[in-house]
Amino acid sequence: MTNSKYTIGVDFGTESGRAVLVDVATGEEVASAVHPYGDGVIDEHLPGSDKPLPPDFALQNPQDYIAVLRETVPVVLREGRVSADDVIGIGTDFTACTMLPVTASGTPLCQLPEWRMNPYAWVKIWKHHAAQPEANRLNEIARQRGEAWLDLYGRKISSEWFFPKIWETLNKAPEVYEASGRYLEAADWIVLQLTGEEKRNACTAGYKAIWNKERGYPSDDFFAALSPRLRHVVDEKLSRQVYPLGQRAGGLTPAMAELMGLRAGIAVPVGNVDAHVAVPASTVVEPGRLVAIMGTSTCIMLLGEKERLVEGICGVVEDGIVPGFFGYEAGQSCVGDHFAWFVENCVPPEYHEEAQRRGLNPHQWLEQQAAQQQPGEHGLIALDWWNGNRSVLVDVDLTGLLLGATLATKPEDIYRALIEATAYGARVIIEAFDHNGVPVNEIVTCGGLPGRNKLLMQIYADVTGREIKVAGTDQAGAFGSAMFAAVAAGKSMGGYASIFDAARSMARLQDVVYKPRRAHKAVYDQLFAEYLTLHNTFGRGANDVMKRLKALRQRMLVRV
Amino acid sequence: MTNSKYTIGVDFGTESGRAVLVDVATGEEVASAVHPYGDGVIDEHLPGSDKPLPPDFALQNPQDYIAVLRETVPVVLREGRVSADDVIGIGTDFTACTMLPVTASGTPLCQLPEWRMNPYAWVKIWKHHAAQPEANRLNEIARQRGEAWLDLYGRKISSEWFFPKIWETLNKAPEVYEASGRYLEAADWIVLQLTGEEKRNACTAGYKAIWNKERGYPSDDFFAALSPRLRHVVDEKLSRQVYPLGQRAGGLTPAMAELMGLRAGIAVPVGNVDAHVAVPASTVVEPGRLVAIMGTSTCIMLLGEKERLVEGICGVVEDGIVPGFFGYEAGQSCVGDHFAWFVENCVPPEYHEEAQRRGLNPHQWLEQQAAQQQPGEHGLIALDWWNGNRSVLVDVDLTGLLLGATLATKPEDIYRALIEATAYGARVIIEAFDHNGVPVNEIVTCGGLPGRNKLLMQIYADVTGREIKVAGTDQAGAFGSAMFAAVAAGKSMGGYASIFDAARSMARLQDVVYKPRRAHKAVYDQLFAEYLTLHNTFGRGANDVMKRLKALRQRMLVRV
Repeated sequence: MTNSKYTIGVDFGTESGRAVLVDVATGEEVASAVHPYGDGVIDEHLPGSDKPLPPDFALQNPQDYIAVLRETVPVVLREGRVSADDVIGIGTDFTACTMLPVTASGTPLCQLPEWRMNPYAWVKIWKHHAAQPEANRLNEIARQRGEAWLDLYGRKISSEWFFPKIWETLNKAPEVYEASGRYLEAADWIVLQLTGEEKRNACTAGYKAIWNKERGYPSDDFFAALSPRLRHVVDEKLSRQVYPLGQRAGGLTPAMAELMGLRAGIAVPVGNVDAHVAVPASTVVEPGRLVAIMGTSTCIMLLGEKERLVEGICGVVEDGIVPGFFGYEAGQSCVGDHFAWFVENCVPPEYHEEAQRRGLNPHQWLEQQAAQQQPGEHGLIALDWWNGNRSVLVDVDLTGLLLGATLATKPEDIYRALIEATAYGARVIIEAFDHNGVPVNEIVTCGGLPGRNKLLMQIYADVTGREIKVAGTDQAGAFGSAMFAAVAAGKSMGGYASIFDAARSMARLQDVVYKPRRAHKAVYDQLFAEYLTLHNTFGRGANDVMKRLKALRQRMLVRV
Repeated sequence: MTNSKYTIGVDFGTESGRAVLVDVATGEEVASAVHPYGDGVIDEHLPGSDKPLPPDFALQNPQDYIAVLRETVPVVLREGRVSADDVIGIGTDFTACTMLPVTASGTPLCQLPEWRMNPYAWVKIWKHHAAQPEANRLNEIARQRGEAWLDLYGRKISSEWFFPKIWETLNKAPEVYEASGRYLEAADWIVLQLTGEEKRNACTAGYKAIWNKERGYPSDDFFAALSPRLRHVVDEKLSRQVYPLGQRAGGLTPAMAELMGLRAGIAVPVGNVDAHVAVPASTVVEPGRLVAIMGTSTCIMLLGEKERLVEGICGVVEDGIVPGFFGYEAGQSCVGDHFAWFVENCVPPEYHEEAQRRGLNPHQWLEQQAAQQQPGEHGLIALDWWNGNRSVLVDVDLTGLLLGATLATKPEDIYRALIEATAYGARVIIEAFDHNGVPVNEIVTCGGLPGRNKLLMQIYADVTGREIKVAGTDQAGAFGSAMFAAVAAGKSMGGYASIFDAARSMARLQDVVYKPRRAHKAVYDQLFAEYLTLHNTFGRGANDVMKRLKALRQRMLVRV
């Protein structure tokens, strides 16, 4: 009799890390554990200092990542009653672009006493936004030079990405830039810790560092146009060696095996990104089936046969999600956050009280009320830009709009209108793909929202005219990493030959399917036409009032 | 030693009537009393019936008006310790158009047993909106015929006015139309009760019944174009005799004197309208000083030297406010209602709790928070159309808009933006007057809002660039009626020769003056330009999305 084999996936999030132990043959999630980062998101002052950080800073302590491994892996083994002998691999995924300067041997600069008090020596996480000036300048120069790769990133490199963040350090703390041996994505740094191997992964390289499988990184001339000192940034601080997803990066080092209670030498795949591993975790390893990872914001992933230019996407990367396909990423920057903002700021006491009386949270009570309405009944339409627009307009200076309110408008009316607005936003993205030769036939959702709000799911089906399914796992990041660990272990070790095989055996969908209702779709088609008109009026330059108000707000706040 | 002389003003409102006893020489308000209407606003079923009324009905029982006189006048005499011998007149003002069918002798049809159960026999009050089809048809026919008077009413006769309401009865209950001896404004009916004289006043005739001092009523041909049976409506159901404001209608009848404890024969002026008597009560009897009566909605009154066409006003009537001037009326349909809606529907529990802890109501707490901001700091702009737009667009199908919201937007931000939106709306009206030769140099406010919200007053000053003053009386309707009673009594009886003299001696302003602040005005000029662009986009046909959403809402509600 053969013992079952297991892999562990570890998902490094914004506030904590989560491990899940999965049965490789069945995909059963045997145990999971979460550990919060001791220093959390560092945005006020460095640990051990009371000096305020500059605005828009968001840092992390890499030691916290090691603590997650140390604290969670033994727990899942114990709670799952699984022997380390039966664990054949451990995979990881990370937020991105989350990056750090390290010495030549991979030690984070921030762990050296001489750099400890320099904020630029720490991990800049994805939502560190202080590199906006560098991003703006980079985009300007790329446009002037007619850089072809710009089109693959919706014509805009984000301030959240790799090169703006490096350049910011060069500008603000050149001594840190000079002292660093290399710059690594945290996704690759954790793999370096686990295996002793620096194996940069294709996903973060492609989506965050402008790397292309065919054409590599932007030219040295381009970097020199940013700054002469950046001419050789790739060769000096990165590496031109980039590895495909699912590949074995190396075997687990004895020290790390000891730390976690695992066997040394088990398979560790190259690093990956939370949203991207969620795609196979949601059963999707083929074109036509869009994956929406829905939480505070929505990340949208889609596979295509060809490299197409699609307006306002975050990026398209060959092999960037699963091998053999072009991985498209797009997103909506305000989804769960939208409803949370509304409930926190705009819902009167009676609704909170009535929800409590019924044993519901305010979201559930609003959902129940809103679910009784027909489409169009509330008379409202909203633009879902409370946190800017990621796709397809790629404009952080856009803001929210609500139109159609009367003295009869109720909180549940606005709540429903905000849900619908995010659904229209999703439809804009879907149509951008569809009209540019990257078809979308079905939507698979994962993340926190789908299980919490059935009305939202049905509205998305009605608005987009597509069937919507829900991933079986509610921790798609960690689960996907466990799948890639099974691929890195390989068939001979009890794993899988490919992510396709792993998806077929391990991933599954819930039984529920939200089907578009024809009569609702017809009304929503009218409303979507109204949304599009407003979208284009305020998002494409006909009336830039949102940007002017935002600029005025900045000026007035400075004056105060 | 001469005793002081007094007059009584009685203001008939929507839910109740209010009497005030005023010292004629000094304008001191000696006593006041309120009496609610026993039947209130009748909009569900007639008293003594459970048969539902048709939609959009709003009726009153004329017996309730008599009860107000009976209940309030003795109270003010008693509480003011004033002898009936020293009361030289009693004046009245009413909501308008509030109208009723009466017999040839002035008895309301609804008081006759045979008509008691017919809703069309009762008083239709100003907000009875069931005559909208008749109003639409009337406007269409007037436009086709090129009726010149249409321009004097913002090119739109409201469904609230006299002829649509009469025509509605002819269409829906011709037997009531035939049975009526005459149709009267309640403002004139109450004077008929007090004096036995039918003296139709120039104010309601001018503003609500399309009467003009030079040209009289619309032609019989026009009425015949509505319906052959309306050809002689003026001669059959109204009267071509119309009396100027302040004129003595007659002496108080012995029966009414007995009912109220007053002396028979004292002066009763012709009837008037609540908003219009508020103008001299606010010290305004000359051009250039706009009066804003600010409550749930805002009524705007202005005197001009000439008859000018001003876009979207409610009406211009020669001698319609004070003799010798053209009285212009405009309005905003959603002001206090706007803030009440917001506080009721959009303010979270913590704000209510914090207000309570501080001994404030939620409005006051929001006002305190919002007052700490600079103009433009919240980044928002709103269109104040939660209840449509009365002036200058005259369109009930427009709805509210809020633009600029982000995840950082707080309730006090929206509260301030809504206040500013109503200020921009007021500025649109002021500029329409100013650009059409009816100058506005100063604003005098009265009504409930000015005393309650200093921030609002200051914002209005900053947005409009005009000084804003506040009437001394907080019951401008009843006080103005007491002034007109003093004019009707005349100088020989201890009153005044004219409303100008009465205003000089009786009316006063509060000491507070809100002055525009130059730096704030400059920012608000930018924001007003943004408001105007949105106002014109959504209000003048470039994007009729508001009307389409409202129509869709109607269709969906019918389907439910």
